[in-house]
Amino acid sequence: MSQFDAVDARWLERTVELATLNIANGGGPFGALIVRDGALVAEGYNRVTADLDPTAHAEVVAIRAACKAEQSFSLVGATLYTSCEPCPLCLAAALWARVDRMVFAADRHDAARGGFDDLEFYDLFARDRSTWQIPVVSLRIPQSPAPFDAWLAHEARTEY
Amino acid sequence: MSQFDAVDARWLERTVELATLNIANGGGPFGALIVRDGALVAEGYNRVTADLDPTAHAEVVAIRAACKAEQSFSLVGATLYTSCEPCPLCLAAALWARVDRMVFAADRHDAARGGFDDLEFYDLFARDRSTWQIPVVSLRIPQSPAPFDAWLAHEARTEY
Repeated sequence: MSQFDAVDARWLERTVELATLNIANGGGPFGALIVRDGALVAEGYNRVTADLDPTAHAEVVAIRAACKAEQSFSLVGATLYTSCEPCPLCLAAALWARVDRMVFAADRHDAARGGFDDLEFYDLFARDRSTWQIPVVSLRIPQSPAPFDAWLAHEARTEY
Repeated sequence: MSQFDAVDARWLERTVELATLNIANGGGPFGALIVRDGALVAEGYNRVTADLDPTAHAEVVAIRAACKAEQSFSLVGATLYTSCEPCPLCLAAALWARVDRMVFAADRHDAARGGFDDLEFYDLFARDRSTWQIPVVSLRIPQSPAPFDAWLAHEARTEY
């Protein structure tokens, strides 16, 4: 294990501790950290059932907390450490948050063993939507492009 | 346009109104609704830059609000209407929220015209991660499976 990996492994160990501690606290078995320049910015742990929020995955909670701590909607330069491979929700959240790197300890197959649908959702994402059981329907109405016209005409817009 | 589409179109018109109104309010040009049995459950609009939360996409905000309104982490039976095709973050959030259907007005190409990365992130998701510029690193440590062992041993767990 390289020195680089050893640093990563220490942060990952902390995510795994968080994940395990979170179970007794009523959450799912997932923990995450946002780290910048070798320092912890924020922790997150899964609160889906505890907070009745299906988006409260550990990574999402950590990203939101880190943005609050840094008073920014961008985490450029930061690393996301997570006890388990980010699901599509968390992977996309990390992309939108503009983190530099993601490092994970367990993977989608471990999550499946725990009864979680990460693997299933990755498989869905890899398939054409027309084959999905859940309909995702495009219905173009005359007004569809209007918000983007208004956005581009709005000179004070903040891009992200 | 079928009667079914006409009902969908009316809800979509409301998402487009929300999206456009949200711009003057400091948000991005996106709006969403959660509807169940023909009745509105919750609205959402993009608050990424306004609330410094990169996960505050319209659909995520609507899902969180609907779950709060219904005091549940599941939206089974509900439809997500959105002014623009759900990005991977929002699509996965809707899957985790277990909505029955999603209907959208504009698409990823309209969003790209507005300067948003939905199309780019969909393209990333379709490519092997080894080709991504942003590293997503698997680092298996001895403790990796431990949270799932603890989870499966925890009889009082709430599955989702």
